Formats: sequence, C-alpha cells, structure tokens
Amino acid sequence: MNEDEIRRVLKAVKSGKISIDNAFKRLKHLPYENLLFARVDHHRHIRQGVPEVIFAQGKKVGDVIAIAHSLYKRSKNLLITKATKEISDGLKIRNAVFYPISGAIAVNGAKKKKGCILVLSAGTSDIPVAEEAAVTASFLGSKVESIYDVGVAGIHRLAGSRKSLDSARVIIVVAGMEGALPSVVGGLVDKPIIAVPTSIGYGTSLRGLTALFAMLNSCVPGIAVMNIDNGFGAGCLAHKINLL
Amino acid sequence: MNEDEIRRVLKAVKSGKISIDNAFKRLKHLPYENLLFARVDHHRHIRQGVPEVIFAQGKKVGDVIAIAHSLYKRSKNLLITKATKEISDGLKIRNAVFYPISGAIAVNGAKKKKGCILVLSAGTSDIPVAEEAAVTASFLGSKVESIYDVGVAGIHRLAGSRKSLDSARVIIVVAGMEGALPSVVGGLVDKPIIAVPTSIGYGTSLRGLTALFAMLNSCVPGIAVMNIDNGFGAGCLAHKINLL
Amino acid sequence: MNEDEIRRVLKAVKSGKISIDNAFKRLKHLPYENLLFARVDHHRHIRQGVPEVIFAQGKKVGDVIAIAHSLYKRSKNLLITKATKEISDGLKIRNAVFYPISGAIAVNGAKKKKGCILVLSAGTSDIPVAEEAAVTASFLGSKVESIYDVGVAGIHRLAGSRKSLDSARVIIVVAGMEGALPSVVGGLVDKPIIAVPTSIGYGTSLRGLTALFAMLNSCVPGIAVMNIDNGFGAGCLAHKINLL
Amino acid sequence: MNEDEIRRVLKAVKSGKISIDNAFKRLKHLPYENLLFARVDHHRHIRQGVPEVIFAQGKKVGDVIAIAHSLYKRSKNLLITKATKEISDGLKIRNAVFYPISGAIAVNGAKKKKGCILVLSAGTSDIPVAEEAAVTASFLGSKVESIYDVGVAGIHRLAGSRKSLDSARVIIVVAGMEGALPSVVGGLVDKPIIAVPTSIGYGTSLRGLTALFAMLNSCVPGIAVMNIDNGFGAGCLAHKINLL
Amino acid sequence: MNEDEIRRVLKAVKSGKISIDNAFKRLKHLPYENLLFARVDHHRHIRQGVPEVIFAQGKKVGDVIAIAHSLYKRSKNLLITKATKEISDGLKIRNAVFYPISGAIAVNGAKKKKGCILVLSAGTSDIPVAEEAAVTASFLGSKVESIYDVGVAGIHRLAGSRKSLDSARVIIVVAGMEGALPSVVGGLVDKPIIAVPTSIGYGTSLRGLTALFAMLNSCVPGIAVMNIDNGFGAGCLAHKINLL
Amino acid sequence: MNEDEIRRVLKAVKSGKISIDNAFKRLKHLPYENLLFARVDHHRHIRQGVPEVIFAQGKKVGDVIAIAHSLYKRSKNLLITKATKEISDGLKIRNAVFYPISGAIAVNGAKKKKGCILVLSAGTSDIPVAEEAAVTASFLGSKVESIYDVGVAGIHRLAGSRKSLDSARVIIVVAGMEGALPSVVGGLVDKPIIAVPTSIGYGTSLRGLTALFAMLNSCVPGIAVMNIDNGFGAGCLAHKINLL
Amino acid sequence: MNEDEIRRVLKAVKSGKISIDNAFKRLKHLPYENLLFARVDHHRHIRQGVPEVIFAQGKKVGDVIAIAHSLYKRSKNLLITKATKEISDGLKIRNAVFYPISGAIAVNGAKKKKGCILVLSAGTSDIPVAEEAAVTASFLGSKVESIYDVGVAGIHRLAGSRKSLDSARVIIVVAGMEGALPSVVGGLVDKPIIAVPTSIGYGTSLRGLTALFAMLNSCVPGIAVMNIDNGFGAGCLAHKINLL
Amino acid sequence: MNEDEIRRVLKAVKSGKISIDNAFKRLKHLPYENLLFARVDHHRHIRQGVPEVIFAQGKKVGDVIAIAHSLYKRSKNLLITKATKEISDGLKIRNAVFYPISGAIAVNGAKKKKGCILVLSAGTSDIPVAEEAAVTASFLGSKVESIYDVGVAGIHRLAGSRKSLDSARVIIVVAGMEGALPSVVGGLVDKPIIAVPTSIGYGTSLRGLTALFAMLNSCVPGIAVMNIDNGFGAGCLAHKINLL
Repeated sequence: MNEDEIRRVLKAVKSGKISIDNAFKRLKHLPYENLLFARVDHHRHIRQGVPEVIFAQGKKVGDVIAIAHSLYKRSKNLLITKATKEISDGLKIRNAVFYPISGAIAVNGAKKKKGCILVLSAGTSDIPVAEEAAVTASFLGSKVESIYDVGVAGIHRLAGSRKSLDSARVIIVVAGMEGALPSVVGGLVDKPIIAVPTSIGYGTSLRGLTALFAMLNSCVPGIAVMNIDNGFGAGCLAHKINLL
Repeated sequence: MNEDEIRRVLKAVKSGKISIDNAFKRLKHLPYENLLFARVDHHRHIRQGVPEVIFAQGKKVGDVIAIAHSLYKRSKNLLITKATKEISDGLKIRNAVFYPISGAIAVNGAKKKKGCILVLSAGTSDIPVAEEAAVTASFLGSKVESIYDVGVAGIHRLAGSRKSLDSARVIIVVAGMEGALPSVVGGLVDKPIIAVPTSIGYGTSLRGLTALFAMLNSCVPGIAVMNIDNGFGAGCLAHKINLL
Repeated sequence: MNEDEIRRVLKAVKSGKISIDNAFKRLKHLPYENLLFARVDHHRHIRQGVPEVIFAQGKKVGDVIAIAHSLYKRSKNLLITKATKEISDGLKIRNAVFYPISGAIAVNGAKKKKGCILVLSAGTSDIPVAEEAAVTASFLGSKVESIYDVGVAGIHRLAGSRKSLDSARVIIVVAGMEGALPSVVGGLVDKPIIAVPTSIGYGTSLRGLTALFAMLNSCVPGIAVMNIDNGFGAGCLAHKINLL
Repeated sequence: MNEDEIRRVLKAVKSGKISIDNAFKRLKHLPYENLLFARVDHHRHIRQGVPEVIFAQGKKVGDVIAIAHSLYKRSKNLLITKATKEISDGLKIRNAVFYPISGAIAVNGAKKKKGCILVLSAGTSDIPVAEEAAVTASFLGSKVESIYDVGVAGIHRLAGSRKSLDSARVIIVVAGMEGALPSVVGGLVDKPIIAVPTSIGYGTSLRGLTALFAMLNSCVPGIAVMNIDNGFGAGCLAHKINLL
Repeated sequence: MNEDEIRRVLKAVKSGKISIDNAFKRLKHLPYENLLFARVDHHRHIRQGVPEVIFAQGKKVGDVIAIAHSLYKRSKNLLITKATKEISDGLKIRNAVFYPISGAIAVNGAKKKKGCILVLSAGTSDIPVAEEAAVTASFLGSKVESIYDVGVAGIHRLAGSRKSLDSARVIIVVAGMEGALPSVVGGLVDKPIIAVPTSIGYGTSLRGLTALFAMLNSCVPGIAVMNIDNGFGAGCLAHKINLL
Repeated sequence: MNEDEIRRVLKAVKSGKISIDNAFKRLKHLPYENLLFARVDHHRHIRQGVPEVIFAQGKKVGDVIAIAHSLYKRSKNLLITKATKEISDGLKIRNAVFYPISGAIAVNGAKKKKGCILVLSAGTSDIPVAEEAAVTASFLGSKVESIYDVGVAGIHRLAGSRKSLDSARVIIVVAGMEGALPSVVGGLVDKPIIAVPTSIGYGTSLRGLTALFAMLNSCVPGIAVMNIDNGFGAGCLAHKINLL
Repeated sequence: MNEDEIRRVLKAVKSGKISIDNAFKRLKHLPYENLLFARVDHHRHIRQGVPEVIFAQGKKVGDVIAIAHSLYKRSKNLLITKATKEISDGLKIRNAVFYPISGAIAVNGAKKKKGCILVLSAGTSDIPVAEEAAVTASFLGSKVESIYDVGVAGIHRLAGSRKSLDSARVIIVVAGMEGALPSVVGGLVDKPIIAVPTSIGYGTSLRGLTALFAMLNSCVPGIAVMNIDNGFGAGCLAHKINLL
Repeated sequence: MNEDEIRRVLKAVKSGKISIDNAFKRLKHLPYENLLFARVDHHRHIRQGVPEVIFAQGKKVGDVIAIAHSLYKRSKNLLITKATKEISDGLKIRNAVFYPISGAIAVNGAKKKKGCILVLSAGTSDIPVAEEAAVTASFLGSKVESIYDVGVAGIHRLAGSRKSLDSARVIIVVAGMEGALPSVVGGLVDKPIIAVPTSIGYGTSLRGLTALFAMLNSCVPGIAVMNIDNGFGAGCLAHKINLL
C-alpha cells in the first residue's frame, strides 16, 4: 500500500536517514505513481454507499454471475442492468430483486429514499428503459414515481397526476420514435428534465438517433440528454440532482 | 408536329395509299418516338393554368431572367422560387410580385382561389419556407391562410384561430430544430397534415435532417413529409389535396 | 371524471355556494389539469369509428393478444400491424382477418367504403408494405384497389388499368431500391401521390434510406413521403385525403 | 380576453340565463380554444423573471434589433445569443452588456445571484461556448465561476481551484475534439455534470458530432449532454438544477 | 391485345366507319394507355434470349421455386441469384446448375459464348460475388475467365496471367475492405474496368461503403462502379460492353 | 534512363565482364526499382494520344497555368477540368478552347473522332457535368452527341432523337436530385449506360449522395456509376467502351 | 519459375544466340509480367519468420481448417484470428494454442521475444481485442505485457505498474465507448501509443465509430489509430515499431 | 510553488514540528490538488526541447501572434500550424521560418536531427499536409526526406528513390481521394507506416472520410492512421517512433 510508502519516507526524514532533497525527489514522483491511485481508493471509501454496477448486456451469463458475487462480497449493494432471467435464476444472492421488463437486478441498495423523481415514458415499448431509470434512482436512494404510456396517444393519463408533476424535483422523460415528449413536458414545467431516447421505432428512427437528435434540438432550453436506451445514466443523473 | 404525322398516316390508310399492316407498323413505333411526347405536350395544354416554375437557387441572375422571359411568353403565368431582389429587379415583367422573405416571385397565377389551406410555422426563422408554400398554393388557385410563429414559445397565437384550424381542408406545418410541431397539430385535428422540415437549427439539427426524421417518425399516423425547406412542394401537394 | 368536476363548480356557482371569482380561479386551472385531457377523451368519442391500432413488431405474442382483447372490448374495431401467424392463431377474436403477407390483422372496421384509393407496388418484395397500406385504408373506410409489381420490369401491368389511374382520388406508390416509381407515376397523373419507401434492397439501398431520399427529391413536385416500410401511415393519410 | 369569456359564462349560469348543460358545453371547448393559451400567458406572468431570449445567428441585424426592442419594452430583461458587434452597436439599449467572445448581449437580468455553477472549458477555442453558458446562468440568477483552458494541455490550471470544484453545485464542462474532459472531471467529483460539445476540431471531429457522441458514451454514468455549441442550454439547465 | 385495338381503328378508318378526327382522338390516347406497354412487350420479344432473373435473397424458398417454374415455362432460360442449396434441391428443373459459393442457379442460358470477360477477386471472401458476376456474364453469352485471390497478398497469381489481362475486353474487379484493387489493375491496363465493392470487412469497412467510396474516388479515371455485392449487375454490364 | 542500365548489364554479360549469376542478381532487383517505372513510361509512350489532364478545382490560378504549360510542352495535348475564365484568360496556349459552362479547357486532343457516345442530362443545372463528359470523350477521340434537359419535365426533347438513342454505342446519363433518369433510359435501350450523379439539389439530396445511391440501386441491371459530378470519369469510361 | 527465364535470356545473350536488343525487349516486359511477382515471392522468402495469418470470422469452419493445414505445411508458423472453439477443436495441429477470449490460435511463432510492448484495455469487454493484439505481437517476436481493465473505473490498477509504463517501448491502448483512455495514457508517457477502438457500447457508440473518431481527435498529438476491433493490426504495428 | 509546499512539510517533519500522521494527511491530499500539476510542469521541463505548438486555423490573426509571443518568451522554440502569410508577416520573431504551402511557421526547433523519416504524398494537392508532417518532424529533431506526387500517376518518381525507402525508419504516406497509396507502399516495405488521409477530392471523397476509412481497412496489416489532414500528428508520431 502506498500509504505505507509515504509514511516510510516521512519516518526516514524524521530520523534523518534521508535528506529532505532526497525525500522530496521520491515524493515528487510518488503522487504520479501511487498517490493518484491512493486518492482513487480513498475516494471509493467515502463513496461507500454507491453500488457497484454491472452492465450485463453482451456478457456471458457465467461471467456476470461471477463478477456479481465478487462485488457483492465487497459491498453487499449491487445493481445489474440489462440482465436476463437466466442470470437472475443463477445469481443465488439473497435480497436480489429481478425486474423482468428492464432486466435490472437490484441487491439491497440505499435504505432511505429521499426527494422525488418522476419517470415518464411515451409508449409501452419505452417502459424497459424507463424502469431501468426508476430502479437505478431508487437503488441509489431517491424516491421515484413512474407514469408510463403518456405519449400523444395516452397523454390523458397525466391528467390525474398534476400533483406528481408538481411534487417532482427532477423529471425523466423516456421516448423513442420522434422523441417529442420531453419538449411537451418541458412546456408544462420548469423542473430539470432528463430526456432518454430509446431505440424504439423503425426505418428513419435510426435505432434511436432520430429521437436523440430531436431531444438535443428541443426548443425548450436546457433539457439534459442521455445516450440511447441509457436508463441507468438517467437514474444516476436524476439522483445526483435530487440530492442537491 | 406529331399530331400531323398521325393524321397523315390515317389519311393514307383511308385513301388506300398504305396498307393497314404498314400503318400499324408505323403507328406502333410512333407512340414510343412521338406520341408519348405528344401526350406530354397535350397534357401540358390541358393543365394550361399550371404555372411554369423556376428554381432560382444556384442559378445565375441572367439565366433565371432569360428562362423567365421565355416561359412568360408561353404562358403568362410564372412562379420563381428562392429568387433574390437582384433577380426581381432585373425581371421587368408586369404583375410580377416579389415576396422578399421567401424569395418567391409570382406572375399572375390562378385567378379564382378555392377551398382553404392553412400554413403554420414554428419559429420566425421558418417563415421563408412557410411563405413559399403559401405563395405557391395561392398561385395554383387555393385560398391560403398563414399563422406564423406558433411553436412551443408562441403556441398561444393559435388561440384565436380555432376557426382557422376548423375551416382548413389541409394544413401545412413548417418547423425546424426538433420538428415536433406537426405531431402537436396532428393531435388536435383530423385533417391531412403536410410537414415541411426546415434547415433551421445548428449542430445536431444536421441542416434539417433531424426535423425531417422526427416528422417521418411522428406517432401521429399519416403525416405527409416533404424534403427539407421544400415549401414549394408542400404548396403543390396541399393544392392538389385541396382541389379534391 | 372531470366532466363531473366542471358541473360541480357550475352547480356551486348557480346555487351561490361559491363566488364567480372563486369559480373562475378553479376553472382557470382546470383546463390545464383536466379539461385538456377531457378534450382528448371527448375527441376519441367523436372519432368513434377510428380503430385502435397495435404495432405488433417487437412486442411479445402474449402482450399483443392481451392489448388486443382489452381494446376490442372497448371498440369492437381493431387493427394490428406487423403481426405474425402465431399472434393471429392465439387471438381468438371473431371476425379477425389475418393478411399473411403484410402481417396485418383487421377486426371489423368501417362498414361503408367510400371514394377510391389506388395502391401500386414496384416489386414483389414491396407487396407486404403495400398490403398494409391497402388493409389500413380499407379498414378506415376507403375503397381500395391494388396493382402490384408495376416497377420497370412489370410496368405493362398498368396497361389495362388506365381506368384505375383515372378513377383513383389518391395513389399510394410503394417502392424500394432506387425508389423511382413515384416520379414515374407522378409524371402520368395529377392526383395526390403518397410515396412509401421500403427497406427492400441491399448495400447502398441503406435499408430504405436511398428510396426515401430519392422520393423526397423527386422532380415531380408535391409527393407526400412516409417513413420507411410505413404502409400503415400511408393508408391513414390516403384515407384522410380520400374523405375530403 | 378569455378570462372575460369564462366569467361571462359563470355569470350567465348564476343568473340562470343559461343551463348548466349549456354552460358545460361551452366551457368544455373553451380550454381547448382559449384557456390553454390563457394558461400559457399566465404561466409567463408567474415566470416573470425569465428573460426573453433571441438567438441572433442567421438573423438579419435589423431584425434582431427590432425584436430586441419589442421584447425589451415588455420585460426590461433580455438576453441575445450569438450576436455580433454590429448588433451590439445598433442596439442602443441602456445597460446592455456585450460579451464579444461569445457574442452574448445581456440586458439587466436577475439581480440576486444564488448558489454556484462552475464552468470549465477544455481549450481556448471552446471559450465562446463556455462564456455563453456562464453569461446565461448568471443572467438567470446563478453565481457562476469560470475556469478556462483546462484540457489535457492546461489541466494544471485546475490546481489552485480545488475549492471551486468543491463549492460548485453543478459543473458545466465545455469541450471539442475528442470531448474527453467531462469524463475526466466526472472521475473527480460527484456533482451533476453538464457536458457541452463544441464544433471545434477538423476532419473526423465532424463539426462536434464526435465530441457529442463521446460525451453520450462517457463511462462516467449520468452526464447530462447538450446540443453542439449550445452554451445557452447548458446555462439554463445548470441554473434550474442550481435553484433546487 | 392492343395490337388488335390499333388495327381495329385503322380498319374502321379505311372502311370509313369512323372519321380521321375520331380515329386520331382514340390513337392519341392509345399510346399512353396501351402502346407504351405494347412497346414494352414487343421489346421483350426482340430481347427473347435474355433470361428472366430472380433475386432470391429475402424471399421464401417456396416463392422462389414457384416464380422460377412460372418463368421457366415462358423462356426455358433462367438465372437465380443469392439462392440456397435448399432452393436448388427443391427446384427440380432439368439442366439447372447450382453454384454453391455464390448461390447462383443457371438454367440453360446463351449457348454461344463470345468475346472475353476477365473476373478478378481480391480475397477469398470476395469470391461469392465474383462467381455471381462470372456466372451471369457467361449465362448471357460472354466467355468468362476468372482469377481469384489476387489482392495484395496474392498478386503473384496474376503473374502467369498476363495473357488473360491482354485478351480480356472488359475486366471485372471484385474487392472488399479498402477496395484498392481496381486502382491497381487500372494502372496496368487500358480496358474498361468494372469495380464491385463487397461487404467483406469489419468496423469502418461499413459493410462495403468504404470499398464503394474508394472505388468511386479512384485516381484511375473512368472506373465503372456497381452497388455493394452486386456481382449480377457487373456481369450484365460487362456482357453489354463485351457485345459491342 | 533505366533502359540504359539493362543494356549495360546485357553488354557486360555478353562481353563476359560479369557472370550470369551476378547479372541475374542485378536484374532481379531492377524491375522492382526501375523497370516497373520504365514500363510506366513506356506505357505513356504507347498511349501518346492520351491527354495530360489537370483537375483545376481547388488549385491556384498560377499553379494550374504553370502545370499546363509544362504538360503542353511535352504533349501538345492537354485537358483541364473545372477551370475558370481567369485560368482560361491567363493560359495563352494556342488552340485552347474554353467551355464556360463546365469550365473545361481542351487543347488539341484526338483529331479523328470515332464511334458514337450520347450524353443526356436531366436538368439545366446538370449541364456543366454533362458538358465535361462530352468534352472529355470528344477530346479523347469519340464522336459525341449531347441532348440536355431531358428529365421528367423535358422528356419530350428525346422525341425527335430516337435515332440518337439507336445510333449511340454508349450513353452517359447525368442527373441530380433523385437520379431516376438512368433507370428510365435503361428501360428504353440495351446499350451500356454510364450514370453520373450530380450535386444538384438541396436538403436530402445530400450533395449528390441520394442520386448516387439511387443509381447504384437501379432496378435496371448493369448501370455503370461514377462519383458525384465526375463528368470527366464518365467521358473516359465511355471512350474506352466506345473504342472496343 | 521466372528466375529460370531470366537466366535463359542471359545465357542466350552470353552465347550470342540472341542480340542485346532482342534480350532487352524480352527483359523489358519481363518485370511487368513475372519479375514483379518473383520479387514478391522472394520477398516472402526473406520475411520467412512472418506467420501466415487467417482471419477466421465469417469463414466456414471447414474452410479455415483447410487453409490452416495448407499454410502450416509451408511455414510451420500460423496465426488464426477471430476463431472459435469449434475451429480449434477441429484443427489437430501440434503446438496450436487457442486463446478463448480473443479467439486467436497461434501455432509456434517467433521463438525469441524482444523489446517490450505494453497492452492496456479500458474495460473487461475490451479484453478480447487486447488479447488479440498481445497474442499477435508475441507471435511475431515481441515481449508483451498486458494490464487489463484500467479505464476510469479501474485506473488504480496502473498504480503498481509504473515500471511497466516506463519499460515499454510501445503502448497499445484498447478502449470502446467514448475511447478516452489513449488520451489519458498519452498525457502520462511520451512513447508511441497505438489506439484500438472497440465496438463495445450501445446507441451512439455506433459500433465503435465514436471511440474511433474520439481517438483520431485526441488532443494528445501523434496517436496511431487502428480500425475498430483490429487487435491484430495493433499487434503488427507495435511489433514493427518495437523492432526498430 | 508546490515544490516549496512539499519541502515545508518535510522540514516540519524533520524538525518535529508536525507529526508523521499530520504530514501524511497533508501529503495525501497534496498530489491531487497540486503535485499532479507539479508533475505536469516538471514533465514540461524534462521535455524541454518539445516546442509549444499553436493550431492557427480558426483563430484570429492577432490572437495567434499574441499566444506565439507569450510562448516564445518561455521556450524560444515554437511551431505554428495552418497559419497564413498575414500571421507570418505580423509575427516579427527572429528565425521564424514560414512554409507557405502548409502554412507552418517554425521558430528554432531541435538543432540535431536524428534517424530518418520519409514523407510521401500521392498528389500535388496533398503536399500541404505532407509538408506540415515534414516540418513538424524536423522541428522535433528528426531527419526528414520528402518525395511528393508519387500516386498512381507519378509512381515512377519513386524509381530513383529505392535508397530512400530502404534508409527510412518510418514512412509517412499522405493521400486523399481513395487513399490507396499506403497499401501500395505497405506492400513494398516492412517499416512502420503512418497514413494521413487528406480532404482532397470531391463528392464521395466525403472531405477525407473515404481515404480515412480505406486506410483503416488496408489489407496491409498494422498501418497507423491519423485524423484527416493531420500532418502535425503524423510528424509527432513519426518522430516518437524514429527516436526509439
């Protein structure tokens, strides 16, 4: 451990074993070689509560489970995204909750939920991404409310939910196709809005690029945009804002 | 003229100068060589009122004026799009009306205006394209009403205009940036909607591609989409629909 | 229900229970919170005959069937697009007609068919999209005639069909590859033309983008363009125009 | 004014001039036709402090000045982005401050500045966008600190600024080329980070698309991304978050 | 048949049953309605020897076989491209030859082979496309010689083949990846060169777009370029040139 | 000169000055170092009539003129493409003919013109590229006929030109926008067709990419496609084919 | 063999059987027809140690094994990339080592390993590409050290490895997503850095294009960039540099 | 200065003024806040000879000159790329050498030139980028030889230069259009090759993307690729490799 190294140098200075010039020279290079990383480790310790996260998509079932067990030992908190039932079945970790629509698996997570994040999704096909955002933010310690299927065809579902819009501190809006919902919601409220484009659509939806670009060009100023299908990122950002 | 040719063959048949086989052989090739084109000319004649149109952008001032004069002689009706004041000044055609915002120049055009087309534009920067659509449709013979600047920031301007929405037979919606206005209007009315993306915006507006793709992916089914900045095409389509 | 809310306020005004100022204040916020959505509901009611539509592609068989049953209860009219035989077999709804080429399933739909829509497809591979357009328009209440395989190689099939071209009020043209058919048809008739690019082709057909862009750039002015493979949208637009 | 309309209906109900059914029918359509927009106006009023903003790029000098004067009359607060010295010189509005690097012109703006937003830029060429973000957030009422030129080549400038990183509630990071700075900053702090790609670079920087996509794919979860060169949007979002 | 129609009109003219004016009127519309298509049919007849071609990719096995039988009845000559062994096995047409590498199936075809076409391929993975070109040109009536695997790694295979390069009238060059082989061959010979990019490669080969664009930008002037993987087209063009 | 080197080696062998082994060793490396290039030079000599060509676009006026003079000294034949009047005025070479529409400058060129190439252009804006193709092919020694402006709007100009279509050995078709003209012409004739997309158009014409891709995807098999605006390449290819 | 041909000519010259002119004429064409390729063969011989390499991806199992056996006979050294366990199992070549993560199979290879190449990978998903680079460079004769998973989340793993960074002559950095690791490493060392983007990521990672473009735009000058997932190429380049 | 800070802590430890724990705590945070940056400064010092570089393109003349003077004071060595004559004229720094073709300005630079770098360019239009690479590498301390205009049309210029190819340690190959030259050179030599695509070309050269992608897909393994037009980067990398 590099803490030891620094202490060793300091002791040698104190005891006069090495000159200050010599000590300086060693320390000058130290930060670069070790302290930077020590800092990183320290950093991890003070962020203790933050779960280790595994992005399961494209990884082998066995590998995901192995990484999960290794992380679980360290922190007891664990989030897996884009997982499958097969992974969930093989996981064998107590308290693991599997969300089949998004493929998220949450193990423990923050006990106290604070503030309020509202998650809206435009169509039924966008729900997996919305759920991932919701599970992530909740896992990190935010209160989350979800209202799904509020695109043009189902916008009346927002009707009874004016209170939800009013009480939320941050709003995550998940939409595919032409990605217009964030602009519409942005016309209704002044809260920070996080827009998540989804790969839902066909042809010129370009696997989500169209929704992404539409959101980046929203005439409502100041909408935060995430990568396509990145519910996890939206959950993280919403939680960080919610904590302020 | 190929009308003459056909008549000549027919007369020769009648007078027995040529056999039916021989006549058939000549006629069989005629359509391909001449009648097809005769048809085209005929076609032009029965469409008499349709203006000749010149797309001035990228053409030299002198060339546009020369083509304009040549067409004007033929039909007295003439539409020039994406023209400049310089072209307008040099044109010297009586009754030519120059629309400086869109750069359209209309000479005469249909005298009777029928039906009703409503042209909406999202932002002030979209007005040139909207005006081109309006001038075109009017020139072709449609009544046109225009309400500009009704995007998210100015949507209240539609307020006093419910009647306009109700009385229109077709609605042209011009928008740049994220191109969401056609979806919003499409949620309000059941009329045919023609969406025209504009190249207004920057960065990921991709010179209008984002608005175009958003419009093509509208969750409102059945929106007709035009090429970027193609107000002229929108005016033509709206007029054709309006005439039904 | 918000109708009740408004009536309650009105009754309270009538009976003098609340002042006009107070009533105004409550009503002023109502529209935003409830009436907007009431409007939407109302809107649905007056559009009674419009079928609920399910886009089946990418949805699970069980989910599609569940949504279908739920919608069927409400309206007895139902259209499913991009469905499979498996969905059709599991549906168990009386009068459901499955169109295997396009994967459309229509339940009931408009009884009276009006006007006339002509659907043309360029190649045999484009027929699924053309059929979807035809089924949709017919379901909504339009008379539809289809002539398939009239691209460059089969354009002679249009020969006996001059009457079809003449009697149609709107023409849907479905084509993949270089997407030139709408320009060709547009040179023959003055009707509104709706062009639907398909993802048929390989290499630089770019899954339909080339056909789409070619159609948007047609030198025939005023062709309405749809998203790639969007037969459903073309059917909707054609029907709206046909109804005028 | 539609407030009058509602009151008129209410009075008529009270006085018994019209039935509740009749009143309901009129009110039911009101929101759609007028109240929605009334709401919008009301909305503007309660947001009083929000400046009107003009995006000057691509607009004519005279037009920008005319719009500016018209808005200034209404609110005395005004922000113009991407303006030029020529616009600034012609503006003749008292208190107008021109920021020549970004082309922003601020007139008055929020008097009290709250919280703290830190704006970082990677290279000297990114400063115009960073300044626009800073001016915007400050204008809206946030305290803003800016540290420019802290990319790989100048990262030592952050050295004396640990306090700035610690005291900021939100951090805006502006970067072109490979857009890696937000990831680096995101590895150092847990605050919400708003990444703004710039069009700085050449060749495969693709006018900012590369930086944009890199930011959207940051391995630091939860970075908010803006459109290319959209300093104004970043300022708005940062301010909304800062206010929480 | 429209030949009959024209003859009927001519007979009526001859016999005086109808006036020349009347005959003209009917003939004037004829070409448009029928003769154009008659022409097309005639055209087919004089091109008798040209095989009907079926592009099998993406079509169902049963459909391909059905179309094949229908075409075979008409012309006894038949070419199927991108077919599978399953199609070949089910075809049951005498003389059908299946080329398993390209998936081409040729039935009969031109008996006399003229001129000489040389087909070169850069890598072993490009052979399927090269074989399709070779089979097509041979089927149409050209003598074809093929030399495969002559890219940078195997260019020595051209060594013993100077005669082939000299005796060819047209050269087809098939290459994926960076698509440089046509430029190299173009530096050696003055013959017309037809370049066919293939989708071979990964990452930035962009499924053949890179090879395509490289070929279009060859510094050797006048290289004919085909769509990606379009061996069939190359065979057709080479044959047309070879016939001159 | 390396011819000398080889002769020197051969003489030394003959006179017994060096052994065959030694001579072999020197010759073995020669081809790589010199003969390859000798070949190239030789090659140039046998191609004597081929003009040196300068692509003037993007080069400085002075540079173009200097290169032109240097080449002219060598061969008396010279072709400059995409030149300007300024270059033409400064050139001062006898017999130089400047074609202002395409910017081509031809000096001398082949005296005998053989065969026949037909150049068609779709719109007036495509003429510069068509003229470049025509000038190039003529300069190289082909007879060239040009018919301009035969797109959908002017297709009747082909009417009197059936003979031109019939007598051409190769047809160059130049078109921008949706690039459909080659498909149309390809439906009429069986000659080799060379399609040249132009950058004419706006929005989704994507500076010629749409026309290019449409041409590559033509349902007429075997159309040779050139780079965007590459009239020179089309002229070269047409000439090579014409010479066969 | 063409060596024989040259010797035959030389002998004939020596013996006076043919004149020098005649000999020259034959030799002048020789290089082009044969010597060039002889050179290539010779070249292969002096590069003896270079393994033949098979890119297995997209090839059939049987084909890969057949090519492998054929090459193995020639050189006893063999590298197969992107292979599968199935290929490995069927290979039956002594000393073949299968690397299951990358799919590389190495048979023998250079015995002496020189210099030092360091291979870093950003995430666990990037290891297959990193391993391919490492196996390739080692096979060619370089000493290779690998440190995996040193992206932002695991950068502390570099901590104990300052020596590795210092002793490496070349560093290969493999990264997907936003591709920022090469810039970070490039800020730490002055060695040549070879960046390999991977297709790891989703949405706007665009299958590796984003990482590729970010690396090409690194603000650290002089980073060598490879094609997406091209570990083999990185291994080759690193080895070539390492050998200097 | 943070060197002082560290020494102060060490002295305090030595003199017993602060405990080792206390000293450790201060040092542990130091690296993060200061030492990292101290390192950077130190780093700069040991890299003394490395010039400060200014990328002038897109910067104002006055700004470039101001930065240049400020850097010149510090190091007396200075490189400016993509500068103009106007900048050069205004610079007024002794020993500044302006290279007008590339726009590079070098002030002093390394006195001793080592090793050998060969710079090849394909066409005359690629020379500016090639020159920038050459000037950069020379400035950094490498011997550089340049051979320009060796593309397909001028490859004979390499003829007398076999020695150059043999004596170079690294070869930079600059090419636009189809970017094939690096593959050709890579077939001739085993040295590390650095390929620089240029934006030379038109249409589908896509401002250099085609050359870039072709180079990334070269069938010669292990070619290092730079950003489009990035001669400076190539010079840096070549120098780093040359120094090994």
